[in-house]
Amino acid sequence: MSDLIVWTYDWVPEMPRGFVRDLRLRWACEEAGLAYGVRTVPFENRGEAHFAHQPFGQIPFLSDGDVELFESGAGLLHLARKSEKLMPRDPVGEAQALQWTIAALNSIEMVSVPWWFLEVTGAKENGLTGWFESRLAHIESVLASRDWLAADRFTVADLLMADVLRVEKVRAFGKRPATEAYVARILERPAFKKARADQMAHFAAADAARA
Amino acid sequence: MSDLIVWTYDWVPEMPRGFVRDLRLRWACEEAGLAYGVRTVPFENRGEAHFAHQPFGQIPFLSDGDVELFESGAGLLHLARKSEKLMPRDPVGEAQALQWTIAALNSIEMVSVPWWFLEVTGAKENGLTGWFESRLAHIESVLASRDWLAADRFTVADLLMADVLRVEKVRAFGKRPATEAYVARILERPAFKKARADQMAHFAAADAARA
Repeated sequence: MSDLIVWTYDWVPEMPRGFVRDLRLRWACEEAGLAYGVRTVPFENRGEAHFAHQPFGQIPFLSDGDVELFESGAGLLHLARKSEKLMPRDPVGEAQALQWTIAALNSIEMVSVPWWFLEVTGAKENGLTGWFESRLAHIESVLASRDWLAADRFTVADLLMADVLRVEKVRAFGKRPATEAYVARILERPAFKKARADQMAHFAAADAARA
Repeated sequence: MSDLIVWTYDWVPEMPRGFVRDLRLRWACEEAGLAYGVRTVPFENRGEAHFAHQPFGQIPFLSDGDVELFESGAGLLHLARKSEKLMPRDPVGEAQALQWTIAALNSIEMVSVPWWFLEVTGAKENGLTGWFESRLAHIESVLASRDWLAADRFTVADLLMADVLRVEKVRAFGKRPATEAYVARILERPAFKKARADQMAHFAAADAARA
């Protein structure tokens, strides 16, 4: 049995399936060829035990023997240390992969997720739209001149950035051909497809168990 | 001369002074006792040279010999590898510091900065308020039972979380005594005070040069 365990919910409604963030960790394990197991916490009635592992009551968290981490970004950086496939080992390539991993979390997702939240909760005006457009324009100009964010090859930074940018409302918002080509290309990776299919099967099995 | 260079703007208006994010990197260097220099890019008329270093046209970025990183969070994690004062070296303590560093960026700042942005840009309604209250309540309940986020001592995670939470509108929003005590305690650290004073002096000198 593997020491690596990706923790997710036992079940979720239809809407977020395929986007629940355990997918990021599954995907990284698949890219790196790391064996891992999946365990669950209840989606409904999140209790003290859950908050002890994840103080915001969310998933995923990752356990690796005695080590445990919440935050998908932290889990990805932890996994990246285990495999050069996720992150180069030369200092310049490693720094590039690290900066773009953080940029996905703190320059793009910091705007995209609240923008998306205001869209889906039906705010009368979305005061983040101009800021979000500006961030997406910067990413588009980066991706217009290169295929990968760091070190001229796929890294954990691309995994995370593509996961942030593949959200349907984000993908449908404006025309950014370089970004769209980048996202489409990354979503063709077998490791992504396997991780997504495994997540869908996990929640489908939960439906069957409930029925 | 030090290899470590913190890059910031040559000048900024009054309002953001004391909060410009080069402060995070200055503060981390001060905590760790790392020698560093400060260099600047123009605040006005940001050109291609700036975007080549920071593709969103922001600061800070950090150079360390041949290595260069943008994103204050990435710079902090880079500096944390240089000093155990910023991040424990045992795997459990290191994972805790990493997860809370990412939590500051992606669970708190991902809500606090867009919430703040909507407040200061005068949105008629702030659709992020409920979500933000919930995130702050979770942090309050964590800080009610401990003094530090990771490894029972000050780490880079506390530096970043306190920097995120010290923003005036955030600090004034609601009553969270454990969080307030945590922020106030961390802002008393000599390394923070020195970093803040140095940033204020840097921009004051820029005013004088302009006058």
